[in-house]
This record gives sequence, C-alpha cells and structure tokens, in this order.
Amino acid sequence: MDYKILQDLSLDEGGKIIYLILDGLGGLRMDNGEGTELQVARTPNLDRLASQSVCGLLDPIWPGITPGSGPAHLALFGYDPLKFAVGRGVLAALGIDFQLTGRDVAARVNFCTLDKEGKVLDRRAGRIPTEENSRLCAKLRENIKLPTEFFIEPVKEHRAVLILRGEGLEGDLVDTDPQREGLPPIEPRSLFSESKETARLVVDFLNQAKDILADELQANMLLLRGFARYDPLPTMEERYKLHSLAIANYPMYRGLARLVGMDVWPEVGDLQDEFKLLSQNFPQYDFFYLHVKKTDSFGEDGNFSAKVKVIEEVDSLLPQVLELKPEVVVVTADHSTPSKLKSHSWHPVPLLLYSPNCRVDEVEKFDEISCIQGGLGRLPSVALITLALAHARRLKKYGA
Amino acid sequence: MDYKILQDLSLDEGGKIIYLILDGLGGLRMDNGEGTELQVARTPNLDRLASQSVCGLLDPIWPGITPGSGPAHLALFGYDPLKFAVGRGVLAALGIDFQLTGRDVAARVNFCTLDKEGKVLDRRAGRIPTEENSRLCAKLRENIKLPTEFFIEPVKEHRAVLILRGEGLEGDLVDTDPQREGLPPIEPRSLFSESKETARLVVDFLNQAKDILADELQANMLLLRGFARYDPLPTMEERYKLHSLAIANYPMYRGLARLVGMDVWPEVGDLQDEFKLLSQNFPQYDFFYLHVKKTDSFGEDGNFSAKVKVIEEVDSLLPQVLELKPEVVVVTADHSTPSKLKSHSWHPVPLLLYSPNCRVDEVEKFDEISCIQGGLGRLPSVALITLALAHARRLKKYGA
Repeated sequence: MDYKILQDLSLDEGGKIIYLILDGLGGLRMDNGEGTELQVARTPNLDRLASQSVCGLLDPIWPGITPGSGPAHLALFGYDPLKFAVGRGVLAALGIDFQLTGRDVAARVNFCTLDKEGKVLDRRAGRIPTEENSRLCAKLRENIKLPTEFFIEPVKEHRAVLILRGEGLEGDLVDTDPQREGLPPIEPRSLFSESKETARLVVDFLNQAKDILADELQANMLLLRGFARYDPLPTMEERYKLHSLAIANYPMYRGLARLVGMDVWPEVGDLQDEFKLLSQNFPQYDFFYLHVKKTDSFGEDGNFSAKVKVIEEVDSLLPQVLELKPEVVVVTADHSTPSKLKSHSWHPVPLLLYSPNCRVDEVEKFDEISCIQGGLGRLPSVALITLALAHARRLKKYGA
Repeated sequence: MDYKILQDLSLDEGGKIIYLILDGLGGLRMDNGEGTELQVARTPNLDRLASQSVCGLLDPIWPGITPGSGPAHLALFGYDPLKFAVGRGVLAALGIDFQLTGRDVAARVNFCTLDKEGKVLDRRAGRIPTEENSRLCAKLRENIKLPTEFFIEPVKEHRAVLILRGEGLEGDLVDTDPQREGLPPIEPRSLFSESKETARLVVDFLNQAKDILADELQANMLLLRGFARYDPLPTMEERYKLHSLAIANYPMYRGLARLVGMDVWPEVGDLQDEFKLLSQNFPQYDFFYLHVKKTDSFGEDGNFSAKVKVIEEVDSLLPQVLELKPEVVVVTADHSTPSKLKSHSWHPVPLLLYSPNCRVDEVEKFDEISCIQGGLGRLPSVALITLALAHARRLKKYGA
C-alpha cells in the first residue's frame, strides 16, 4: 500500500483504536504438551471477545522470517519493516528518552571485562549495577576528547548507549562485539567508504576509553554494536492522523513508539498500572498502544507455565479495556516466542480485531490454531493498521 | 504479477469465462439480525454451485481500503487499481458512449442553482428532467466560444459531462463543486503548473456559461468535478487475448468495460434481459462481464430485505448461465455494500469459481462466512483474472 494514498484517505476524526500487544505471544505445543501457551491458558474474556470479533493470523515480516522486536513493532504500526530499518543503537537511545537529532549516530554499549591479553573474559562485565555504570559513563564523558560532540549514557546494569553527533556521520559500521568470550573485540571499521570518518572517530573513542578504564576491575572496556544513524520516521499523526499514546514499560518499546511520533507514558509499576493508565488517558488520544512484555520474557526463558500466567492476567484485565467502549480493539503480538524454542520465532501470530463494524466469523477461542479459521485469513502485519483505521471509520473511499 | 509475463503465457484459444458481478454483494449482519444479506437470502442454485466450486474471499484493493466502483472493477479485470487510476470524468464520458481520444480531459457536471449572492442553493438544480438537461447542453454548446474543441453532453437528470479536447491538456484540476450548499463554487485552478492552460480554459468556459444560463430559473450554473485526462488502458484482448462482452445497465460500468476494450451492449430493460443477452451472445465472445447493480443500490439505501430479494432473483436466473456450459463461471462482487453501513465498505467479498477443472473444496453455502473456509483462501481481487484464465485453459506453463 502506497502511504501517499493512505495519507490522502485518512480522516482526522473517527473512532478510537486500542492495540493490546502481548510481546512474543505466539507459541508452540511442548513435547507431550496439551497445546500452545495460549491454548492452555484459561482466557474466558479473550474467548468471549473472539466470538464477537474477526480473527486471523499475522506474518510479522514474511513467512518464515523471525523478526526482532523493532521491525515486528514497526510492521504492526503500518511501517514496512523491510523498508524502514531502524538500528538497535537508535532504539536504545530513544528508550532512555535521549533526544536524537538528524546528525546523530548511536550504538549500543556493553561494559565488558577484558583479560590481560585483551580477549573478552565477560561480555557483560559481571552485570555491574546501574550506579556503577553511571559512574563509568561520567568518567568517560569527562576524560575523552573527540573532534566532534558525543554522549555516553547509562541504560541498565552493563548496558549503555554511545551517540556521536556531527555532520556527515554514517551508521554502517561493524559491531565491535565478537559475540563470544575468548576473542578480542573487533576493530571498528566501516562497511562502506562513506562511513570511514565515523569509523576513525570510534577507533579514537575506544582507544581513549581503554586507557581511562584500565584501572577498573570489572568493566575495563566497552563493546559496541548496532551502529545506526537516526533518520526520523514520518509519524503516525502525519501518516494516519492518529494522536497516539504508548504505554510500555521497557525502554526499547518506548523508544520505538517515540520514533513513530507517539506520546510515551513514563515507566510504570506493573501490568495493572498499565491498564489503569489506558483508562485514565482514554479521552485524550485516538490510538493506544499497550505493551505487555512478560509473555516474551518468559518465552525466552522457556518458562511455559509463567507465560501462561501472564496471558491469564491480561485476560483478567481485558474487561477494563472493553468498558471504555473503543470502536476498535486489536489483540495480537509483535512475533512468536514459543517457550519450546526459548527464542523469537517465525510462526505467525494470532490476531483478534473487535469492532461493532467487523464481520464476525465463527472463531470462538483466541489461540493460534482457532484463528486459522478466522475471517481475516493470513495477512502481513503491515496490513493491520489499515484494517484498524477502516473499522474505526477513519478512512475515506478510494476512487469513485 | 507482471503483465508482460502474463501476456506471453496467454493463449488465444480455450474455454469461455463468465463473470457474474453482483455489485456491493458483500454484507454484514444487522444488529440482532440472523446473518448477512447473502446468508439470509434463499439461494439454492448458488449453494449447489458453491458445493461444486472452489471458493474464497477477495480484497478489492488492500485489506481495510473501501473502494469506489471504478478501481474495484479494474481489479476484477486484473488491472492493478493502485496503478491504473481512472478519473470520474473519464468514466462518466465512457458511460454515455462518448468516444474519447488521447487528447481529451473530461469532467463530471452537475447543473446547480446559485442564489443572488452567487452561493450554491441546490447542488442538483432540483434534479431537473433529462430533457431539460439536453436543452441546456445544446444552449451552452451553441453559444460558448473557446479556443479549443469542447463537448458538453447530458447524462441523466442534473448530470452532464464536459470534455475539452486539445494538445497538452491535463486533468489535475480541483473540483469546482464546494460539496455543500451555502458556499460559492470553487474557482477552477490547477494542482500542478502543467495544468494551468487547462484551468484557464475552464475559467473561460464557466464565465461564459454563467452568462448564458443567467436567465434560467433552476439550472443557472454548473459545478465541475472529477477532472481527468483520458489515457487509454491496454485492452483485455491485448493483455489476455480475451474477446470480451459487457452486459451492464448503468453508464459508469459500461464506461469502465469500454475502457478495458470490451464490446458493450446497449442498455437493456432488466436483469432477465441481461441474462437473455448473455445466452444470445454466448457463441461470439470468450469473456462475459454481467453486471447486477441493484445489490449495491439497495445496500446504499440500507434496504436489507430488498437486497436479499435481488440476490434471490439472481439465484433464480443462475440455471440459464449454467445451461451454456461455460468452462468458468465466477460469481463475486466488486466490493461490499452492507445495508447496515449504507455505503461501500472495506470488507472482503465472497468468491465462487466454478469450472470442471477446479479443485472442489468443502464450502456448501455461498456466503461471506462460508467462503472463509474455501480453497482459494483470501486473495486480492487483482489475482482473480489469472485464476479464471487458468481454469479456462487459456494459460501456458511458466518456465520449463
């Protein structure tokens, strides 16, 4: 879909849309198990809603492609993830509320421990506390001299972000993280000739950092990855005339929401607080993105029953969403994270779209298998936003 | 699908294809209703045919996009509606059998009533009779002097068409119709610098028209919209080697069929006559497009039971189609027009493809919900033509 056309069709009035995104929701049956996490979970509210909805399956990127959270979320918001590639460095910077400019290149940082031979002993420097991280960032900030502006900012534990700011900087640099212990860090270099100046700056930065951190016991070096230049995306407001709010508790998701122009609520305590915030802010916005992280985390841990419990908790909170009487409620995932695989996977994700204007199908249970029979069939995730806009009556007719 | 490839694969022999297009067929269940229009209608013949067919759902343009009839029909005929945009002016001109050339720009005309201050009092001039329209067109034709050739032709009631003919004319002009009463007509202007000459011609035309119509009581001015240059499309014959006949009772659909190179039968009385014509002309053509308008009209009116009756009438005429023993019968719609919404909608349309060569699925009722389970799944409408050609054995193998 050409987004120039979609921009023309979008109305600046219409119903409200809620995206309830259960990260990594899609699952698999365990060996000798009774079903996927979603099939095993007791979800009376989701099932009742499914029976009043139109259901289907979404392919985050393309059949068979396992997505990272960044591209998978972009697709849900209608941004073609094969066209809009956003580097992890940029996402990390956005996630700590760092205000990036169009002259910035960002990279993710791990503080690490090198042995005497300069090989990586611990890629996470023993997961140093965040306070220690802050102290080290301040130390680097004060002592490093570069011919261009830079920022080194703590995130959490051993994780930080490096931002270089200047004209003509490029993000096409190899990761210096060797991804395995026992190997030395990789020398920074550019993938394309345009990035050579950026690579020289990074070499300069790392040489100074090594000297400055030499007396540290744990975190005596930095590993950099996910270099990326920040190119602001067209916003949800510009593309769809949606004034949007993100309620998400983890930095990367908040960063991603900010990247597409959503207002982002500060970190809150738990899932119940997220749902409360949704209700409190309901009058002020057109579009709401509520992110549930722990379905993914427990999937990654291979903790089937804990993932089931999170799903059941979301189910118990669902009536609060329906009480708001939004014109469109979407329940789906960015990607699958089956406990069986302990990682993101390529399997399509279940989708439920509730609206008074939907063509109700015969699906009566919200799970990966039942949704195959749904009226939406199997769609790329990037097609979801037009369906949501249509059901909210926010799109004009195309052509006469 | 690249149509260069398809052109190479097309054979100039093979079976006959009938498209039975029920305009706006797709529906929704009314609040407290028992089903969609198609579910409620008694359709023993369609259901029997469905049980011998392969079924599915079509997305006219893209999931969530509500189409106008023009793009929705182009898609059914295999023309990508996001690539081939056809303006309403062109469709209106084609619909009155006006022979457009590659030097023409056409616009839709409404005769209207202006008040003394020059504001629109009635956008349709009290729906003047067609004879009155003809008289006014003749009056304008005789008295207006332009530096280029032009045509002003009546359509029906208050509707007419303006065609400007000349070198270098462009269609990118704003509508002069303010779309609301109480506002003055909008001054003609070009959207791009290339159209400035065309805009000047239109200003000249309207100034003269205002003087000439000044003494009329009802229709004392014209409103213009849907300016479009005529760029002939490649024909169905050129693309698919299909010698094609359109049987359609409304101007726009006849115009659209002519645009893709079909022979178009003159307007006939009613649905039964349309089906008779199909039988009579069956030996002479490869492809038949039979258009049923009233499913859409009653949908737009919100008249659920009248839409049901039209569906039942089509069902009763279906045996006449099957008697012809065509190799392919397609029954589907250009788009949905649910009585519940009283307008075109984005919901996918049910599709039935009957052929002795089809892979029969388990669908036994022809309706929007049953077709979800069909063997064709959910497809964009633009993919239909290759399926029809294939089942008619009119396509060679691709590659060796």
